[in-house]
Amino acid sequence: MSSSTATQAPRWHWEDFTDGLTMEFGPKVVDRDEVIRFATDFDPQPFHLSEEAGKASLFGGLAASGWHTAGMVMRMMCDGFLLDSSSLGSPGLESLKWIKPVMVGDQLRARMIVLGSRAMKSKPHVGLVNTRWEAVNQRDEVVMTIESWAMFRRREPAAPEQAS
Amino acid sequence: MSSSTATQAPRWHWEDFTDGLTMEFGPKVVDRDEVIRFATDFDPQPFHLSEEAGKASLFGGLAASGWHTAGMVMRMMCDGFLLDSSSLGSPGLESLKWIKPVMVGDQLRARMIVLGSRAMKSKPHVGLVNTRWEAVNQRDEVVMTIESWAMFRRREPAAPEQAS
Repeated sequence: MSSSTATQAPRWHWEDFTDGLTMEFGPKVVDRDEVIRFATDFDPQPFHLSEEAGKASLFGGLAASGWHTAGMVMRMMCDGFLLDSSSLGSPGLESLKWIKPVMVGDQLRARMIVLGSRAMKSKPHVGLVNTRWEAVNQRDEVVMTIESWAMFRRREPAAPEQAS
Repeated sequence: MSSSTATQAPRWHWEDFTDGLTMEFGPKVVDRDEVIRFATDFDPQPFHLSEEAGKASLFGGLAASGWHTAGMVMRMMCDGFLLDSSSLGSPGLESLKWIKPVMVGDQLRARMIVLGSRAMKSKPHVGLVNTRWEAVNQRDEVVMTIESWAMFRRREPAAPEQAS
């Protein structure tokens, strides 16, 4: 229903997320002011707030909050396809791994791979898509992975099932 | 190392997170301007940006991005204990479930339950803690759950192990 206010149908519906489909979005440069602002609002641990504390930590420098990394990737997904999709939101994540620190000045890309999909029995106009997200930095290192399910409106609703 | 710039030892070390320990933090009122600002920055899907699009969606009103809910809970955790802990960050989440919508005006609390912990073999001064986080609204409904691991410096490093 994300497109209910749009004047034309979105490009991406549930049927379009075929197994193995891989798309890459970005890049997004990790901005110092944005790192500090996000941390100030949501994760004010010292190593996310100043170079000094970052250098004294396991990160070795000013590192973005892992939640900020997830937010930056979400934004790349939105700009890349979600805002032109029939997205209905997500029931959650099956895993999220923060694999390497994301440092100020890094350049991130977001990769999405479709792992599978299935119809939703209770809602004939909705389907679920299982995806793996990878955040990749300028050295092609995977810094974060996410496995999640998301709901999308179908282009063609399922045929009515047998009674009950 | 989060406390490396602090002048005294933090209250919470790895040893303090005993199985079953339950703490509750907050509350945090979900603010309309903050919902729209977060969505504008990180998740600009229409149902997170305006009442009109929210009402036309499955959410039925202006709903916070699930990533924003996670951020609000993270902030309550920081204020509640993490900033006075030996936190060294987190390797990731084993699950994150967005169970019910979080709407503007909701009042959230954050609950943390310690599920278990273990020493880190490779780092004698570090231990891991497995926790379940629950975000609860003003109707005592659990709106989000997270299961995660986090690293904390130990108060007393492990004794040196046998050679190799």
